[in-house]
Amino acid sequence: MQKDQKPIEPLLITPDAPVLGGVHGGRAKCLQRLVRLGLPVPPTVALDFAAVRGIASGAYVDGGALLEAFAPDALVSVRPSSEDPDWGGPGTILNIGMNDARHAALAARLGRGAADALYRRFIQSYTAHVARLDPDLHSGAGDIREMLAAFEAEMDEPFPQSPGRQLAEVLRAMAQAWEGTSARLLRQAKGAPPDAGLGLVVQAMALGVGDPAGGESGAGVIQFVSSSTGEPRVTGRYLGQSQGREALGAGGRALYLTRDPRGPSLEDLCPDLFDSLQDHGLLCRRRLREEMQIEFVIHHGALWILDAVRVRRSSRAAVRIAVDLATDGVIPQFEAVLRIEPRALNDLLHRQVDPDAVLDRFGNGIAASPGAATGRIVFSARAAQASAAREEPCILVRRETKPEDVRGMHVSAGVLTERGGVTSHAAMIARGLGLPAVVGASKLHLDHKAGTLTTEDGRVLGEGDVITIDGSSGSLITGAAPLLEPVLDDAFRSLLGWADALRDIGVRANADTPAEAVMARRFEAEGIGLCRTEHMFFEEDRLTVMREMIFAERPEDRAAALERLLPVQRADYSELFRIMDGYPVCIRLLDPPLHEFLPADRAGMLDLARALGLPLSQVADRIAALSELNPMLGMRGVRLGIAVPEIYAMQARAIFEAAVQGESAAVPEVMIPLVSARREVELVKAQIDGVAAAVRSETGRAFDYRLGVMVETPRAALRAGDIAESAMFLSFGTNDLTQMTYGLSRDDAGHFMNAYVSRGVFDEDPFLKLDMEGVGELLSIGAARGRAVRPDIILSVCGEHGGDPDSIAFCRNAGFSYVSCSPFRVPLARLAAAHLAIRDSRNLGNKMPQ
Amino acid sequence: MQKDQKPIEPLLITPDAPVLGGVHGGRAKCLQRLVRLGLPVPPTVALDFAAVRGIASGAYVDGGALLEAFAPDALVSVRPSSEDPDWGGPGTILNIGMNDARHAALAARLGRGAADALYRRFIQSYTAHVARLDPDLHSGAGDIREMLAAFEAEMDEPFPQSPGRQLAEVLRAMAQAWEGTSARLLRQAKGAPPDAGLGLVVQAMALGVGDPAGGESGAGVIQFVSSSTGEPRVTGRYLGQSQGREALGAGGRALYLTRDPRGPSLEDLCPDLFDSLQDHGLLCRRRLREEMQIEFVIHHGALWILDAVRVRRSSRAAVRIAVDLATDGVIPQFEAVLRIEPRALNDLLHRQVDPDAVLDRFGNGIAASPGAATGRIVFSARAAQASAAREEPCILVRRETKPEDVRGMHVSAGVLTERGGVTSHAAMIARGLGLPAVVGASKLHLDHKAGTLTTEDGRVLGEGDVITIDGSSGSLITGAAPLLEPVLDDAFRSLLGWADALRDIGVRANADTPAEAVMARRFEAEGIGLCRTEHMFFEEDRLTVMREMIFAERPEDRAAALERLLPVQRADYSELFRIMDGYPVCIRLLDPPLHEFLPADRAGMLDLARALGLPLSQVADRIAALSELNPMLGMRGVRLGIAVPEIYAMQARAIFEAAVQGESAAVPEVMIPLVSARREVELVKAQIDGVAAAVRSETGRAFDYRLGVMVETPRAALRAGDIAESAMFLSFGTNDLTQMTYGLSRDDAGHFMNAYVSRGVFDEDPFLKLDMEGVGELLSIGAARGRAVRPDIILSVCGEHGGDPDSIAFCRNAGFSYVSCSPFRVPLARLAAAHLAIRDSRNLGNKMPQ
Repeated sequence: MQKDQKPIEPLLITPDAPVLGGVHGGRAKCLQRLVRLGLPVPPTVALDFAAVRGIASGAYVDGGALLEAFAPDALVSVRPSSEDPDWGGPGTILNIGMNDARHAALAARLGRGAADALYRRFIQSYTAHVARLDPDLHSGAGDIREMLAAFEAEMDEPFPQSPGRQLAEVLRAMAQAWEGTSARLLRQAKGAPPDAGLGLVVQAMALGVGDPAGGESGAGVIQFVSSSTGEPRVTGRYLGQSQGREALGAGGRALYLTRDPRGPSLEDLCPDLFDSLQDHGLLCRRRLREEMQIEFVIHHGALWILDAVRVRRSSRAAVRIAVDLATDGVIPQFEAVLRIEPRALNDLLHRQVDPDAVLDRFGNGIAASPGAATGRIVFSARAAQASAAREEPCILVRRETKPEDVRGMHVSAGVLTERGGVTSHAAMIARGLGLPAVVGASKLHLDHKAGTLTTEDGRVLGEGDVITIDGSSGSLITGAAPLLEPVLDDAFRSLLGWADALRDIGVRANADTPAEAVMARRFEAEGIGLCRTEHMFFEEDRLTVMREMIFAERPEDRAAALERLLPVQRADYSELFRIMDGYPVCIRLLDPPLHEFLPADRAGMLDLARALGLPLSQVADRIAALSELNPMLGMRGVRLGIAVPEIYAMQARAIFEAAVQGESAAVPEVMIPLVSARREVELVKAQIDGVAAAVRSETGRAFDYRLGVMVETPRAALRAGDIAESAMFLSFGTNDLTQMTYGLSRDDAGHFMNAYVSRGVFDEDPFLKLDMEGVGELLSIGAARGRAVRPDIILSVCGEHGGDPDSIAFCRNAGFSYVSCSPFRVPLARLAAAHLAIRDSRNLGNKMPQ
Repeated sequence: MQKDQKPIEPLLITPDAPVLGGVHGGRAKCLQRLVRLGLPVPPTVALDFAAVRGIASGAYVDGGALLEAFAPDALVSVRPSSEDPDWGGPGTILNIGMNDARHAALAARLGRGAADALYRRFIQSYTAHVARLDPDLHSGAGDIREMLAAFEAEMDEPFPQSPGRQLAEVLRAMAQAWEGTSARLLRQAKGAPPDAGLGLVVQAMALGVGDPAGGESGAGVIQFVSSSTGEPRVTGRYLGQSQGREALGAGGRALYLTRDPRGPSLEDLCPDLFDSLQDHGLLCRRRLREEMQIEFVIHHGALWILDAVRVRRSSRAAVRIAVDLATDGVIPQFEAVLRIEPRALNDLLHRQVDPDAVLDRFGNGIAASPGAATGRIVFSARAAQASAAREEPCILVRRETKPEDVRGMHVSAGVLTERGGVTSHAAMIARGLGLPAVVGASKLHLDHKAGTLTTEDGRVLGEGDVITIDGSSGSLITGAAPLLEPVLDDAFRSLLGWADALRDIGVRANADTPAEAVMARRFEAEGIGLCRTEHMFFEEDRLTVMREMIFAERPEDRAAALERLLPVQRADYSELFRIMDGYPVCIRLLDPPLHEFLPADRAGMLDLARALGLPLSQVADRIAALSELNPMLGMRGVRLGIAVPEIYAMQARAIFEAAVQGESAAVPEVMIPLVSARREVELVKAQIDGVAAAVRSETGRAFDYRLGVMVETPRAALRAGDIAESAMFLSFGTNDLTQMTYGLSRDDAGHFMNAYVSRGVFDEDPFLKLDMEGVGELLSIGAARGRAVRPDIILSVCGEHGGDPDSIAFCRNAGFSYVSCSPFRVPLARLAAAHLAIRDSRNLGNKMPQ
């Protein structure tokens, strides 16, 4: 012991003591608030972080002096008080001060049984956590004498009888446990800083164990909302003649709190005490501005409040609690908004595997699109459609997905692939559809010919077998796992409504089909920021016409095919405009290389040859001629639009004709993909302006539209000034822009991205987190140059990053008008955007609306 | 006629007249210089651009007044005098002033035949070029009377008899011809500005047709160097009783100039006049500082100099002439350097198809690598090697080439592909090897199975048929076309030596093999700027070991394969260091995706399966697993280096062991490809530093090396500051950087690049001309940020652009240390770099070395 250290300064918590800062920990702070609210808290003393750190490194503790704050015969407890209760810490130790003399005195006062229980509990705790002996030392022993003898035999000294020494040893043991390596690693894994401190709280015991003739004694916990739903409901348990949280594990011996047909309750037993508890709960909620779980003790009929902690809660409950607090005027709306982590909304939007279920896992992959789904295995889009026709939910299992699989994905309950990462085709489409997906399950072996899926442990699954995939965790489960349904309840809608009122950057959805547009509206997106028209062409009937167009040798044949696509496209757009009901719809002109519309295997080519009445060799030659070494960098986007101008002309006509047909006042937005040079925009703009003039004159109806550019090549960002001369908006396609800035295909990055992130080569997967330093700089350059030429230019981001809170912060700082993301990420983006506005506003000292 | 225009002001060229500016055209200027040199030039009057423009738009011309400058009975000629003789212009018209009266007088003085010839010629010219009648009008007519009658019948007026009117009409006709649409388009195609002017020169005729008794009369042209080689040699022809350039087309009737065993010569006939001509030639050369072709007339024994123009010359002759002028002290060396267009050197470095040969062309493609080659068609690398074994030159014909074709290209005389553009694999490799190549001959149909190449007009060529390809023009020729051999003579070496002394940016070569390194030294590259080690692995014996390495399942098997590659690589590097003899060698670590080393077809997979003793299905599975959707953006470069660190470790060891073995003092340079993040460089640097330390301690020899980064992703350019912390040099790989900045694969761009450039979507193919606005900005950003962190960082460019003069200018302005390009472009780059330094120096008013 080092005598030269400064003495420990314990603080007695009283209503008039100075308000505690952070250095005593959360529990001490909370206890002080309970004391200040006038709740019956037993006398309590707090030790701060510095004191506890000193104790851990050997500073002398005068336990006797510490006990002077309490009644002379008081027993005390010591509880940990760290900054965040989630960071763990040593367990509470009760009944400190028990010794032979007090045992005798208590036996006289409360009866031998009660005194034994208290002493036994203390000896056990002390043995295990302070002396650090094997807890089994006392396993057979029921008698106090035997326990004391066993302790003495093991320690070569008698069980300490001085309450002061007992307390000092308990404090040192708890302080040292906090500094242990495993405790440190555990809390750092939960986000604690390396120098996180521990405070300790010494509290006079309200015993809970007493003379049955002296009135009710016991202990319990109570909370006033459901942890799973957040609904107002008293929950908790009470157990007579008990201490601490014993009631919770006491099964049938414990009492319910409120009256309950299943058994006796505290409300029956002690109605007045129960009323007091409810009053205390209400007071806590109003003054602590939070739903608290209260730990209480009744001793000889008197109620004591030992502690209160934030009610543990599911994401759903968190939303309900925050909204109810705001609705009741306890907290302002902005604070309710701020209390919900945007990512927590993911759990609310999707089915979840019941966390309590016993599962038979057969493998796992990358969690690529959240939610859980159960269905029969199918190995092809065709089989998925057949399954849908039978109204049997199915899981589409593929090595990887291609555009022609999209129609199969539309009718599947979930998707499982052997290859690919979080930004693979399968993952992207699944997130767009809100479809659970597990990808890159590379330890499975898919044998297409045999129609089998072999697991790592050798089990063979076949078409028709029922499985469950969990796109939130990546788990793969045999059979139908029990699932919890998603709930988009009133609280959810209220919270997001408040968020919308607070945020200052728009949120649109990426939606390609009427179904997705409906989803976008359901999640209250303020428009469609990216409608990828290519997905419209993968439905069976359209695909055939599209292929005819591609195979047309003569311009008139191509025109004829496009003529048949025109009404189909017009109907697509009409439907979108109708669903979006006046909200803006930004339509990207055809982007992918034409060969994506063509079959890749011999069977498909044969079908196509028959459909087109061409020899197979000619079909195969044409497909070979259209194939590319690096399709990502090939003949696609505006290059296609310039090479085969009839396609964009047809699309523009369909858009404009749909716009004048409908009742909506929306101004359609037409977006040119994969631009890299000013002239590309000029050429397409001239053409589309021409189509608009023609449609105006043919229909006699005036309409406006906006032409803009998808900035997804580094060169388009650098030359944004040139491009802005012909573009009313720039939408940064951060998926492709990331690929090109890194020289990294998202489809191929799966081979090494996990290793790269885990080895710290990349801080994060840049397809998930916008790379602020590289891609972000291109966004800043593009935005500044675009704005310099056209000050009112509309700027936005429409990649997957549009739903990421950090990326939204980046776009907001850069003054973008909106972000656009998958419909299922829209709520998250709305909430994240509100958080940014609130934090900014508070930093500026502005008053938020209540 | 508009009388109110300002009168035309003709200028009589005399030795004392003010020196002409640009507005009279080049011919007038040159004539004035001849007059000032005291040469016997007939009296000459010049009209400037403004006067001629006025005449074309109808200004009145007083021909009579113009003629007052000449003797009263003089005939005159009118010649065009534009700024550049290459821009074309109306033809010269002779004998203006001939009419019935002068005809009679000349018949008396010179004889009837001479007078008829002069009048006949004038009537024919006037009919065709002034009256613009059908030149056939006089086709049957030999008699002057008939000609005049035919003219009058057609024109409804007699042939003009007034010399003044004749001259006025001639001037107007020539002025208007210059303004005609087709003349304008033709000259603009040759680079003339839209407002290019025409001057006209009116000169008294030295007739060249005279009384045989009055002494020798005739006309000729003479020059003192060979137009094809530039060697000193009198060439030209002389024809008695002739005018203008008739001698050149006169065949056997014309005389040689110098004594010649084949026939009579001017030197024999008029030795004094010939001496005078030689003196005039020497004077011109010395004072006009150029080799001139002189047009002369002898009339009645007197010598007249009518005109002198720059000798037309081949590229080879141009070099010889410039070097000889400088060697003789006529011009300074820097001016000799400046007189040769860098691109002209291409002709000197390669065989050319004889421009005079009659050829049977069977198609054409993109001229992808200059030079012509003749050989037998082969359709595979294997057949090329067999052909090489028989010592039969062959042309490798492929749909497109892949890395496994490189060994076939090495032994072929030329390459022809059906697909691809100027930056396709075939084109790039061929340029590196200095191998003529025609690519993208898309109208040919290659049937691999049948072993036939079918031309657009239906001819079928087969393996073994002899063809000639012209990689300078893209022509494809059946049989063996006559070829001219390249000459790298003393003049070439002198000129480039002078260029080297003048330039201030380094020039290195991209060289992958010892053969290319030899070429690099032959072209005096100052080192190797890019050695792509992957090509070293495609030789048969190495490829097998490489494949074993790729297929190794266990680390020890991989280590064993690498152990066998180590001595092979070490020998490669030793040989390179030996050849480069102290010049720096920059070695890029392995870059391409591993699957490029694997066979793509079933036969190759079967071979490999046998060689490795594995089942075919396993080989096929592994190859499929390594395949990528966009290999350009996949698992390659440093990503490979980090995923399989043993490869880079082996390469670094081979480099360092080779460096300590050799005698050379060169510091090896190790370059990391495809970097996009700082940490990638840090990881590889740590590893390579470790290998270096190990080799130092094992060998007990100290050595230095430089580690640098190939900047070829946009992100590496943006983060060059981060990267420079671990990199001593940055070499911009502009090929890949262009691909990623545009989002455009050079392999796939062939589908539309021609259309894009011809429609002006891109000003130039960015793979040929560095895109200054986009890619160039990334180079500037990267250079500035790299330098900010490491002021002495070495910057360079090592893409194909390294050999392009504009790109060299960009790099020089940005302060780069060197450019690196294919060996065959090194001379061009050396010369272009010298041009830039000279021009800069002159702009700064510095005196250049003589």
